[in-house]
Amino acid sequence: MPALITLTTDFGAKDAFAASMKGVILKINPQTQIIDISNEITPQDIWEAAFTLRSAYSHFPKGTVHLAVVDPGVGSGRRPIIVVTESFYFVGPDNGLFSLIYQDAERIRVHHITSTHYFLPNPGPTFHGRDVFAPVAGWLAKGIPSGNFGEEITDYTKLNIPVPKTAGNSIEGHIVHIDRFGNLITNITFKDVQPFMAEGPDPGVATVAVAGKEIKGLKKFYAEATPGELGAIFNSSGALEIFMYRQNARTALPAKRGEVVRLTMTR
Amino acid sequence: MPALITLTTDFGAKDAFAASMKGVILKINPQTQIIDISNEITPQDIWEAAFTLRSAYSHFPKGTVHLAVVDPGVGSGRRPIIVVTESFYFVGPDNGLFSLIYQDAERIRVHHITSTHYFLPNPGPTFHGRDVFAPVAGWLAKGIPSGNFGEEITDYTKLNIPVPKTAGNSIEGHIVHIDRFGNLITNITFKDVQPFMAEGPDPGVATVAVAGKEIKGLKKFYAEATPGELGAIFNSSGALEIFMYRQNARTALPAKRGEVVRLTMTR
Amino acid sequence: MPALITLTTDFGAKDAFAASMKGVILKINPQTQIIDISNEITPQDIWEAAFTLRSAYSHFPKGTVHLAVVDPGVGSGRRPIIVVTESFYFVGPDNGLFSLIYQDAERIRVHHITSTHYFLPNPGPTFHGRDVFAPVAGWLAKGIPSGNFGEEITDYTKLNIPVPKTAGNSIEGHIVHIDRFGNLITNITFKDVQPFMAEGPDPGVATVAVAGKEIKGLKKFYAEATPGELGAIFNSSGALEIFMYRQNARTALPAKRGEVVRLTMTR
Repeated sequence: MPALITLTTDFGAKDAFAASMKGVILKINPQTQIIDISNEITPQDIWEAAFTLRSAYSHFPKGTVHLAVVDPGVGSGRRPIIVVTESFYFVGPDNGLFSLIYQDAERIRVHHITSTHYFLPNPGPTFHGRDVFAPVAGWLAKGIPSGNFGEEITDYTKLNIPVPKTAGNSIEGHIVHIDRFGNLITNITFKDVQPFMAEGPDPGVATVAVAGKEIKGLKKFYAEATPGELGAIFNSSGALEIFMYRQNARTALPAKRGEVVRLTMTR
Repeated sequence: MPALITLTTDFGAKDAFAASMKGVILKINPQTQIIDISNEITPQDIWEAAFTLRSAYSHFPKGTVHLAVVDPGVGSGRRPIIVVTESFYFVGPDNGLFSLIYQDAERIRVHHITSTHYFLPNPGPTFHGRDVFAPVAGWLAKGIPSGNFGEEITDYTKLNIPVPKTAGNSIEGHIVHIDRFGNLITNITFKDVQPFMAEGPDPGVATVAVAGKEIKGLKKFYAEATPGELGAIFNSSGALEIFMYRQNARTALPAKRGEVVRLTMTR
Repeated sequence: MPALITLTTDFGAKDAFAASMKGVILKINPQTQIIDISNEITPQDIWEAAFTLRSAYSHFPKGTVHLAVVDPGVGSGRRPIIVVTESFYFVGPDNGLFSLIYQDAERIRVHHITSTHYFLPNPGPTFHGRDVFAPVAGWLAKGIPSGNFGEEITDYTKLNIPVPKTAGNSIEGHIVHIDRFGNLITNITFKDVQPFMAEGPDPGVATVAVAGKEIKGLKKFYAEATPGELGAIFNSSGALEIFMYRQNARTALPAKRGEVVRLTMTR
């Protein structure tokens, strides 16, 4: 199988930061296929990067190296790491970027990258994406064992990820992401509602409250709503999502990331 | 020849939707080359997707699979289809997205995709780009015959595409697209003016009227106009286009998609 | 080694211009790997393209063909050229786009592309990116010698690139680029300050003046500054850069490209 590396960064498409990383990788192994997950993460937004990476990484072939660089602490003491799971490798800074991977994976191993001979010569303190992480990902995808890059560590950084709270017949979560369509995505998942659905899902009797609005019932697909109607749905990642069919829920609803969302099951 | 798939979607570059589709394709065939035609189609704008796909698809190698997903009806009754022409495959929803392909192709065959074993396991109702269309495109590019995916149909959906009207020595069309440079692209093509050019093109004697402005003569290349001057030209797709040299015609002219444009030949 | 071509254009991600170029290249050689350096150059901004290309090109493998098309003069008399350096090929219009390559390279050879049989059939006058430059890059990457495309020329176009001026213990340069993080990048490089650092760099005693503000000392990495503090640093390209940690220096400072920046060494 050819080497496959994905990229998740806040480097944008206008400047050549991501391209420089790709050049470094291809110099190590010109046969590498490189796929952008996103280079449009909001600058320095570690959570958004973690969320975006999580929504895509598992769809790639086993053995893929997921390179992620949102790195406000570049050049300071924060450690460069490799995370190894059952199926994938992750390379990036130890700042919490891989928190959702730690949550998902059955078993993980984290290496502190210290073998500087895999870096570009004379790495600078401002662009480890190019000087440290890209070459490490390139060599890793070329077959260098993860253990060669440094010792295993256990005190890696995890973001504090709030979980939804169930009380009686309602679940309180919050908005964790707003996508390009203006859909408001929550941390309430299909798993959270399963206890209320012993006899199979009956989404018709749920109510979603957000930002002073109440949405009655859950939809199964977007077009079930009428244009301009607010709807709630369990989306393709299994998360409760508030949408407005053929329009933008975000512009209709003054809701931001962090906003509380309450799902109430009325049976 | 390696498998080649292009992508035309409204999924944007910030979220990981397009990347998830690419992961699914590469899991089926890691040797696939995937090229973005555009993931920046205005959300749910089927016409814009049709127009954008048309401006690029024919430049790709014979056998390319063009995957296009702008799909407001995802999860509802609208059918997933494969379109087969002399040279290409097209995969996407049957919502009119391929209308300009139907217009261009000498012969086409359209299949309703019903062989669900080519889908991801347990496809959801909200993201067929990932669960249905990407795997179908992947298998198609890997060599599965189009007939294996489902029966041929003839009642596929076509957008109502307005054609320019010729009356006397003038042709009335309208703006069908505005590009990133602010160029206003019309549905009047070089073919439409050929009847007026029996003795070869004489663009000097044409006048273009749009949004209350009149542009005299046609240019052969952009730099023929002076900076800030409105010009009209037959562009690289053979369409009449209104431009402002080194500036943005859209900001100078309050014209939108749908705006009437009249070309008058004065001989 | 597989053929590798990079793309630097002002064609954007929304329209299919860049994709059409890629299709043309892949039709010539389906094995080509194509990497975007940037398609988001400000429309017709030749300097920005030159700067962006320079920040990335050297990180790619030897033999890479760098295709760059920011081409306001398309269709007019400006010449299509191939630039050959020790390690790379560059293909694009002769409008100054490669000025920084001429500056960097130890030896260069420039060919005026005149062998029209390498172009697409019937190239139009408005989109040489697709009709002229993409096929030339494709054939070049496939192994056609650069000399086959046309005669060598020596009167190629160079942008007038201002250099920093040293007077006494201060260096006056200006802002040449503002990146997506809002960092203000100057044309003052680490080389310019070396005469002041006979006994090794002592950045603590430097002062940077820009747009009425004074920044004392130089940082070694971004996180050395406190959030919201303006800092100055020699960046990953060796250029003096003004940043605001975890914020956007551009929005804090009313500075544009061209703004004067003065670095004073106080020892």
